[in-house]
Amino acid sequence: MAQKLPKDLLTLISYLKKLPGVGAKTAERFAFEFLSWEKGSLQLLGNELKEIQEKIPACSICGCLTDRGLCSFCKSRDPSILCILASPRDVYAIEETGNYRGLYHIIEHLLSPLDGRYTNTLRIDRIEKRILDSETKEIIIAFDSTLEGDTTALFLKNSLSHLNLSISRLAFGLPVGSSLEYVDGGTLARAFVGRQLI
Amino acid sequence: MAQKLPKDLLTLISYLKKLPGVGAKTAERFAFEFLSWEKGSLQLLGNELKEIQEKIPACSICGCLTDRGLCSFCKSRDPSILCILASPRDVYAIEETGNYRGLYHIIEHLLSPLDGRYTNTLRIDRIEKRILDSETKEIIIAFDSTLEGDTTALFLKNSLSHLNLSISRLAFGLPVGSSLEYVDGGTLARAFVGRQLI
Repeated sequence: MAQKLPKDLLTLISYLKKLPGVGAKTAERFAFEFLSWEKGSLQLLGNELKEIQEKIPACSICGCLTDRGLCSFCKSRDPSILCILASPRDVYAIEETGNYRGLYHIIEHLLSPLDGRYTNTLRIDRIEKRILDSETKEIIIAFDSTLEGDTTALFLKNSLSHLNLSISRLAFGLPVGSSLEYVDGGTLARAFVGRQLI
Repeated sequence: MAQKLPKDLLTLISYLKKLPGVGAKTAERFAFEFLSWEKGSLQLLGNELKEIQEKIPACSICGCLTDRGLCSFCKSRDPSILCILASPRDVYAIEETGNYRGLYHIIEHLLSPLDGRYTNTLRIDRIEKRILDSETKEIIIAFDSTLEGDTTALFLKNSLSHLNLSISRLAFGLPVGSSLEYVDGGTLARAFVGRQLI
């Protein structure tokens, strides 16, 4: 009978395995790495993990991460444009482009019936209230270009169409710097449909 | 100016980046994942990390991980064979083969002058004492097949040669299931040198 890993190490591994892209082997590697860390660093990381959710709560209005209570987006942005996203992480990707000056709204998840995420959990009423409160004129939907993203965008568009707003979604097409040779058929087809006059 | 991630999240990311194979992007992904975890799981993981080193100390004799004080290897194995390894993790890989019944000895690191790991930090005296104490007759060196592994194995062999023991190292050759076509030149050369009568 092969010797098993110590029980506490297996517990740690079972938690680490929940991280995205981390399988049994990687989790084991991480766990052994933690064993070899300086004790001080491990204590700090442990504390940081225990406190991170309290330290960085989501803004109660837009759902973005807030550093110490105040959501910097809700205070200072152009209220006529609202960008709807699926994760607070995506906010920072959009901020990096440096072009967008409007508000954000985070829905907690994309529709995914297989994972138990149905339309009734999307809180459309909250989005509608937000739109009416901030007198939004334009909505930009910025979801992943996946099946779930497409479905949720379509559902949102239909649910909000009675408000008579301009509702757009991020463009699909060739990634900058790509060769046609390596671009997949689906992307190429959408780039054709979305072609623009030059 | 692009909006920066909250400071506490950056701290968490800086710790996660220290894990092997985890770069800035992956660490960021892990950090956001932790933010979305159930609070209970995060508390448990935090505690587990803080306590893991106390819960699983290294055996003071062989350096293997011990679950609650007693090292199961030192107690019950054939003392005439000693397998020298560079990490407690490797013990479990060898145990999985199910063939080895001897003792283990973990040296804490391989020689690597660039990382400040010189021969004087290898504690050869400790290894010698161990060999004399347990009346070892055979030593098996099981290090990685890297430059550091090769160097350390050679150094150990020279340092222990006056004890007149059989000292061997794990064989080099083709991985089982591999095609010659995809095997690198170095491996093939060592497989040639180590060829065996059939």
